[in-house]
Amino acid sequence: MLKVPEHQVAGHLAIDGKLGPLVDDSGRFYKPLQGDGRGHKELAFYESFSSDTRVPEHIRKYFPVCYGSQLLEASNGSGLLHHLVLQDIVSSHRNPSIMDVKIGSRTWYPEASDNYIQKCLEKDRRTTTVSLGFRIAGLQLYEGKESGYWRPGRREVQSFTVYNVRSILRRFVSSNSSIGNESSDCSFAPSIYGGSAGILEQLLELKAWFEDQTIYHFHSCSLLILFDKESVSKGSTPVPVIKLIDFAHVVEGKGVIDHNFLGGLCSLIKFVSEVLSDSKESLIKDCVESEKPGICTDNGNCQQS
Amino acid sequence: MLKVPEHQVAGHLAIDGKLGPLVDDSGRFYKPLQGDGRGHKELAFYESFSSDTRVPEHIRKYFPVCYGSQLLEASNGSGLLHHLVLQDIVSSHRNPSIMDVKIGSRTWYPEASDNYIQKCLEKDRRTTTVSLGFRIAGLQLYEGKESGYWRPGRREVQSFTVYNVRSILRRFVSSNSSIGNESSDCSFAPSIYGGSAGILEQLLELKAWFEDQTIYHFHSCSLLILFDKESVSKGSTPVPVIKLIDFAHVVEGKGVIDHNFLGGLCSLIKFVSEVLSDSKESLIKDCVESEKPGICTDNGNCQQS
Repeated sequence: MLKVPEHQVAGHLAIDGKLGPLVDDSGRFYKPLQGDGRGHKELAFYESFSSDTRVPEHIRKYFPVCYGSQLLEASNGSGLLHHLVLQDIVSSHRNPSIMDVKIGSRTWYPEASDNYIQKCLEKDRRTTTVSLGFRIAGLQLYEGKESGYWRPGRREVQSFTVYNVRSILRRFVSSNSSIGNESSDCSFAPSIYGGSAGILEQLLELKAWFEDQTIYHFHSCSLLILFDKESVSKGSTPVPVIKLIDFAHVVEGKGVIDHNFLGGLCSLIKFVSEVLSDSKESLIKDCVESEKPGICTDNGNCQQS
Repeated sequence: MLKVPEHQVAGHLAIDGKLGPLVDDSGRFYKPLQGDGRGHKELAFYESFSSDTRVPEHIRKYFPVCYGSQLLEASNGSGLLHHLVLQDIVSSHRNPSIMDVKIGSRTWYPEASDNYIQKCLEKDRRTTTVSLGFRIAGLQLYEGKESGYWRPGRREVQSFTVYNVRSILRRFVSSNSSIGNESSDCSFAPSIYGGSAGILEQLLELKAWFEDQTIYHFHSCSLLILFDKESVSKGSTPVPVIKLIDFAHVVEGKGVIDHNFLGGLCSLIKFVSEVLSDSKESLIKDCVESEKPGICTDNGNCQQS
């Protein structure tokens, strides 16, 4: 039984008779192959990637599993269409907070047509792509049972400034997201951004690979970053997930590192580490100011001594 | 007594009645302030940089010392003109091999005019700037007393491909540069690229700063990389020099890292480390194949056991 994904934050949506991806109950994500060759390029990437022995095992976990392609009824009613069959990254999470972050200070690649380059360049300049080396392409933040999700519309997302991005990276790991960006408490930062399995460590592991790998250049790719806020609120520490997605514009690296992706990744890492160190500082302050001074543990608790 | 610099490898030359930088015998380099505001922007950068306490001491050595500005007779005979007075990095070297490497996969900055951006973008795409994240903007390689310097012309430099750049990075540290790129022996790589004071370690020190600093964005800056080949040939190990130069397009970082410079720097680091590891491998091979197998020392000697 195929259905429209509940938690898709960017890209074409399979609603109102439009073409978009579908999911099933077994944890698979069906992405229609785009007609202009992009779909086949993405399928070719997955095939090449899955059999490439140069990709280290510890890096494969950052990519969705691909199960090939399959003919399915398209969501827009146009009949049978080839779909890429991928691991559904999101559905196993109950109330996921998700960011789709498109990495790189340019989304175009040298081999593209002049028209395509100009179109991308304009959007890269209009968004934070050029200034930050990445842009938020979509997001949803779970804000609790009553308020549900904050899911800004496409136009709002495209108008995010550097200031907005910084606020969102704080709000993403805050318990008090509804009371305004300035006062986000970042109380989940130590357990979600920090820690040995946290976002920062995962980004650093990816960075080390990108400093070395010269196999692929990932143009216009996104990092999907997600975690389940409710389980953090309940005291458990879920492992936050990072996956690279959207490989329609991957080209061969030809012996050169993907400096465009790497630069943007380093910029994101700097932002995330700043939120993390700010949250640790305010935790120390809280500990010092509390009546029973304690020790701030790595996962953000104030352990009373 | 002012004169035209002997070892200038890029930029405007003060010859044939044209405007260009001059040097004196006391180790100072006089760069005419360009009339369109760029000269004043570069002077302003040096002033801001020299007094900025956020710049760590170990990073300052990568920048030329600036002694302010001075009114001097311009080299094109147009009369008195303000010149930036800088440390002359090159003149103290007897026969320097020099590369001027412009870092970044774009040389334009978001605040520039559309015309300027299009002009830069075209050149960035025509050269290796977009593909490699850096381009060689000029060079001279000392090839010995008889053959003197190899100093390709501007047009040749601007047409360098990725393949050419890789060859030049090998030839830069080879003793047999005149016999063709393919067979460059890279025999100086361990002592010039490698070692605790070598090019690679210096680049890595700069990289660590660029991963963190959000003060400046260095658009269209170059790394000047130089060493004295003759002194290596004679058995001494000179400390190779790296300096950042050309700051007419530096803008404020506003809390964001210079991901454009950092990405290009990482790409250059990857190229340099490849030359270094290739040279070590061939050294091990030579040791193994020699009649008296020895130990390959870090500075590239085959120490007989």
